[in-house]
Amino acid sequence: MVKESNVDVLIVGAGPAGLMAANWFARTGVNYRIIDKRSSEIFAGQADGLQCRTLEVFQSFGFGDRALKEANHMLEISFWEPNADGGLYRSARIADSIPGISRFQQVVLHQGRIEAWFTDAIRKWTGGRGKVERPVLPVSLEIDESKVEDPSAYPVSVMLKTLSENASLPEQFGAKVANGLFRQFEGDQEKYYKDGPSEDGDLELVHAKYVLGCDGAHSWVRKQLGIEMEGESTDYVWGVLDSVPITDFPDIRNRCAIHSLDSGSIMVIPREQGLVRLYIQLRETPRDPNTKAATELDGNKGKEAQVLEKGRVDRSKITPEVILSNARKILHPYKLDITDVKWYTAYQIGQRVSPAFHKFNRVFISGDACHTHSPKAGQGMNVSMMDTFNLGWKIAHVLKGLATRDILATYESERLQVARDLIAFDHKFSRLFSGKPALPGAVSKGEGVSLDEFHAVFEKGNEFASGTIVDYNNSLLVDKASGQPAASADGTPVSISPLATKVLIGRRFDSAKVVNQSDAHPWHLCDRALSDGRWRIINFCGAFKTHVALNNELLWLGQYLASDASFIKKYTPPGAKVDSVIEVLTVHASKRVETEWDDFPLAFRPRDAIGRMDYWKIYADDESFHEGHGHAYEKYGIDPAVGAFVVLRPDGYVAQVEPLGADGVKNMAKFFDGFMIAQTMPSRRMDDEIETYGADSYGRPLLAV
Amino acid sequence: MVKESNVDVLIVGAGPAGLMAANWFARTGVNYRIIDKRSSEIFAGQADGLQCRTLEVFQSFGFGDRALKEANHMLEISFWEPNADGGLYRSARIADSIPGISRFQQVVLHQGRIEAWFTDAIRKWTGGRGKVERPVLPVSLEIDESKVEDPSAYPVSVMLKTLSENASLPEQFGAKVANGLFRQFEGDQEKYYKDGPSEDGDLELVHAKYVLGCDGAHSWVRKQLGIEMEGESTDYVWGVLDSVPITDFPDIRNRCAIHSLDSGSIMVIPREQGLVRLYIQLRETPRDPNTKAATELDGNKGKEAQVLEKGRVDRSKITPEVILSNARKILHPYKLDITDVKWYTAYQIGQRVSPAFHKFNRVFISGDACHTHSPKAGQGMNVSMMDTFNLGWKIAHVLKGLATRDILATYESERLQVARDLIAFDHKFSRLFSGKPALPGAVSKGEGVSLDEFHAVFEKGNEFASGTIVDYNNSLLVDKASGQPAASADGTPVSISPLATKVLIGRRFDSAKVVNQSDAHPWHLCDRALSDGRWRIINFCGAFKTHVALNNELLWLGQYLASDASFIKKYTPPGAKVDSVIEVLTVHASKRVETEWDDFPLAFRPRDAIGRMDYWKIYADDESFHEGHGHAYEKYGIDPAVGAFVVLRPDGYVAQVEPLGADGVKNMAKFFDGFMIAQTMPSRRMDDEIETYGADSYGRPLLAV
Repeated sequence: MVKESNVDVLIVGAGPAGLMAANWFARTGVNYRIIDKRSSEIFAGQADGLQCRTLEVFQSFGFGDRALKEANHMLEISFWEPNADGGLYRSARIADSIPGISRFQQVVLHQGRIEAWFTDAIRKWTGGRGKVERPVLPVSLEIDESKVEDPSAYPVSVMLKTLSENASLPEQFGAKVANGLFRQFEGDQEKYYKDGPSEDGDLELVHAKYVLGCDGAHSWVRKQLGIEMEGESTDYVWGVLDSVPITDFPDIRNRCAIHSLDSGSIMVIPREQGLVRLYIQLRETPRDPNTKAATELDGNKGKEAQVLEKGRVDRSKITPEVILSNARKILHPYKLDITDVKWYTAYQIGQRVSPAFHKFNRVFISGDACHTHSPKAGQGMNVSMMDTFNLGWKIAHVLKGLATRDILATYESERLQVARDLIAFDHKFSRLFSGKPALPGAVSKGEGVSLDEFHAVFEKGNEFASGTIVDYNNSLLVDKASGQPAASADGTPVSISPLATKVLIGRRFDSAKVVNQSDAHPWHLCDRALSDGRWRIINFCGAFKTHVALNNELLWLGQYLASDASFIKKYTPPGAKVDSVIEVLTVHASKRVETEWDDFPLAFRPRDAIGRMDYWKIYADDESFHEGHGHAYEKYGIDPAVGAFVVLRPDGYVAQVEPLGADGVKNMAKFFDGFMIAQTMPSRRMDDEIETYGADSYGRPLLAV
Repeated sequence: MVKESNVDVLIVGAGPAGLMAANWFARTGVNYRIIDKRSSEIFAGQADGLQCRTLEVFQSFGFGDRALKEANHMLEISFWEPNADGGLYRSARIADSIPGISRFQQVVLHQGRIEAWFTDAIRKWTGGRGKVERPVLPVSLEIDESKVEDPSAYPVSVMLKTLSENASLPEQFGAKVANGLFRQFEGDQEKYYKDGPSEDGDLELVHAKYVLGCDGAHSWVRKQLGIEMEGESTDYVWGVLDSVPITDFPDIRNRCAIHSLDSGSIMVIPREQGLVRLYIQLRETPRDPNTKAATELDGNKGKEAQVLEKGRVDRSKITPEVILSNARKILHPYKLDITDVKWYTAYQIGQRVSPAFHKFNRVFISGDACHTHSPKAGQGMNVSMMDTFNLGWKIAHVLKGLATRDILATYESERLQVARDLIAFDHKFSRLFSGKPALPGAVSKGEGVSLDEFHAVFEKGNEFASGTIVDYNNSLLVDKASGQPAASADGTPVSISPLATKVLIGRRFDSAKVVNQSDAHPWHLCDRALSDGRWRIINFCGAFKTHVALNNELLWLGQYLASDASFIKKYTPPGAKVDSVIEVLTVHASKRVETEWDDFPLAFRPRDAIGRMDYWKIYADDESFHEGHGHAYEKYGIDPAVGAFVVLRPDGYVAQVEPLGADGVKNMAKFFDGFMIAQTMPSRRMDDEIETYGADSYGRPLLAV
């Protein structure tokens, strides 16, 4: 008898995408399991860049500070180009993260640490349960189509096989230096899937409400869904080397884009603990002698694209020495030695995207399973985590009975566009990086890549790469009609309300500092709107002390919220705390010292069941004692004499902007009516899991320690 | 046979003072042991405020961020006074930490967390060794006077007794709510010292080079040295209550000083996790019926001072209810209930100081063993930790053979003055707080405490209490003659060099932001001058790119430092890294982008034994991409056209300010000659323990993980 069990969500793959999903479920108290076929975590190499938006999300889960503390902060980009004498010169320096785009800037460190933060967070939220089960492999997946629309059903059945430690050990750990060649060049971990079970004791049949395939570029889950990636691969081969360089190149601690005249390009990524990652174009690569084109490779000059198409890289011959030798040619006349080699790999650039991200909105795929591309813009891991960051809270909402299954369709509609944009960006970026540069004047004759164009793409790319300008389309969860059509700086159509002219509906809500009314503590507003599964209504109630109309609106809203007519109460399980599902935060624009605590109706500073008051819901847009003035109203384009409601989704994206007063409240109620389910049964879970009394300095609601 | 052993340092007592000492020894690789008679750590109550300077020191040991994250940031003080109608009104609000005095502001949380950070740091630096041994009690102490001046001798012998778990358990843990009454009111833990050993197996005779008595107000070590505290106690009785208040008092999340007309005073200290500590003056206190004055207590009005002198507080009758009842009277007409009561205690105010801090500079006492006073200014724990922060590195220097024993005398000369200043401050402060307030107009008739005077003392006191204006006197370790006599704002004589007009010699070096030349990372300069046992010379080499003379000085210094004549080499063990004992950090005032990495001689960016370069020693006083301009030269009062050397002690205090060039170098060499020992023997320890290659984002030298 094969063991059988039920679970609400089964996550396949414990890389960053899978762990982000598990983190959401751990945080919101969803019943889940996460499996991975590897027997151990990653301890070196692989992805390493954390973009601004990713850091914002980490912060919202309470471990942004760990990233800032442990990682290398990569702040400056230097561009190096060939000069006429066969040397290199620094042609420009720019900020790496565009100033003002986020309160965080890109940082870099190895993927193993990132996975460790997730693991720690999951341990904290689940009290030690919810760990990754490894080495465990899914061997079959079936969907009972008749049940996919039944919220209480478990329509997906997955057979799991527990592997022996040996079978799951990636080859790379046997090598002298850890490397990614095995993973990068072959899909032959596939072979494990084909092994028959040795005995029944290794098997378990899991019935799941939802399954997430976070199992990488060669996704087994994607194959079970019959979805094939679309795209192409190029013949540009790049090596990656993590080491401590010993060099006279002066900018080795900057991010550098170095184009040599004839020997290819290098990207320098300075890392934590003195390490530097070098992405090195491999012009001279060992090829497999058994493939047709292999002998044509020697001495190829300028025609690699056609030639290499036919020869396959002989990965067994790529060593740190081969990569280093290419690097030295590119960096000439600067000298390069290396020590402390931690990891290396090589890859052939390609761009592929999956045309669908789910089946029946019951089985989803995320991350590398949906999109693969070149790693140099530091996007892969970030976009992968943002996939499941988008999906996790939606599944949690549906499983808790807070929202209808309809919201799940927004996963694909929101993330597929991001994947396509990414692929288009990478297509352009990687070709410019790998092409032979033009010397000044040569471009007009059509020879080589224009380095001016490269710089322009790079700078524009940095905005895209930051992850902060993702713009979700109109849907059940984004009310673009609450704003008006407008064009962003680059011409993209966006939606903006005249009430909040710098808040783009559908984009992430950027943080501004505000001052707590009760204790004068300056906070980043987003540190009071954390990823805990709750919606937020930011009540920008304006300068209500000097505007009678605004004060009247505030008093009216206080009465409305306290009344049984409140739509917030409608969607909150009876008996749960009033802020369990939708929390109201107030940011006023009067002077803090001219405002008294009891100017605010109790609905804005509610008491819990035993009478403890929440002192962390009311803020002033005012000067702080030690950290200046956040000018929040100005940052958001809100008139202090008018005010606005801003509705934030649980993932921090702007869902709606509405006017203060009864009309705005009616529109918000209508928006939530579109997908939320009126609550009639007391929810014990809701009660238990969200304990928000008190707050630590990062604004996290405190759980009992 | 009683077991015997040797240890370099034995620390008695694992409260904050003892743990700070252990932390220094752990960080610097000194052989030490630390014992405590309690069987468990503190998990609630007791001291709770961390002042600016303490946070700077925590930051220098790498755990400042934990304090900022876990603690409540206390930012504002409200003063409440009686009005003519028998009510209370807010008469003033001020910043709690004076803006600009430090990059940190006072925070509050319970002592147990602070001890946990030390324990974690010690575990990290010692690799899990160096833990507190508990419950262990010292039962005898002998000093062999004939050996006290022999650096290699172990002249102090201490007999240790390991207690059973039961004997060591403080009574308070048996009570329903944890409280400090046992500890505060009795010295009867003494009784354990009198118990004879039950069997030899419990005993160990430890021979130590140095012993530190960090064993609190009733210090057993101090008694063995025959030193008696001097001072007096008052009859003001105060209660302390840690709870979550349920109240309509609007400023409960501010620090408040509340004077009622007739019922006494309250200090409000908002804490972490929604807790609030209330210090409550107890006008109505249960008294011991067996003492003469007890019956006189009922209905006492205005004459408590004389009456209470005779009656002893009956501590068994002080309960949270008694304290709360006093609090309600003071807070009237505001209402007060409490929940989540975590801890309470009561104390009688007194001020006492020890006239001596050591015996033969072999046995030292620190913290409460040297000074006791009232807790409301949040000084006790802070000054205690600063005692051993002052002492620890000096003992480490002597034990490593880097410096002569003469430097140990500066412990008493530096810290006794601080203790006396503290006692004088507390004497004044606590009387103003406990006295009956005058109503407006009443002061001229000599009735009651002037609240204007109270405010003035409070504000002035905040500067003192921050710990940032401690000014160490001239000594082997502070070359006040390198500056000129001047007067500080309050008239205290200080020493300032015209080369750095805002750097006070003998005070702690305040931090300014500077930008790393190699990677554009903005750093607080003090995060590059951590507490790792090293001296620093900050080479403020000025705007050397535009001043030829400054450039010449820089090149000359580079040659000097690389030569065998360098005094830094003289004091560095042969074979150890050049920056192991004295590190040179360079802060230039030219534009960073107009400065190249190889403008700096290699001595300023040294390579380690295998050739890895240090990229974290050269900084620009310049604009950063995302965090503004630190204006360091302006902050320190250094002319960019002139420059200066600033010498920092391992504890971050300014030892000397000297001009750039050969004269300044000669003076620095002379200063170090005063107490350092020329190194001739390779020191393996020095080599092993200081691994500074690479740096994390808080500037901590990285050890192997």
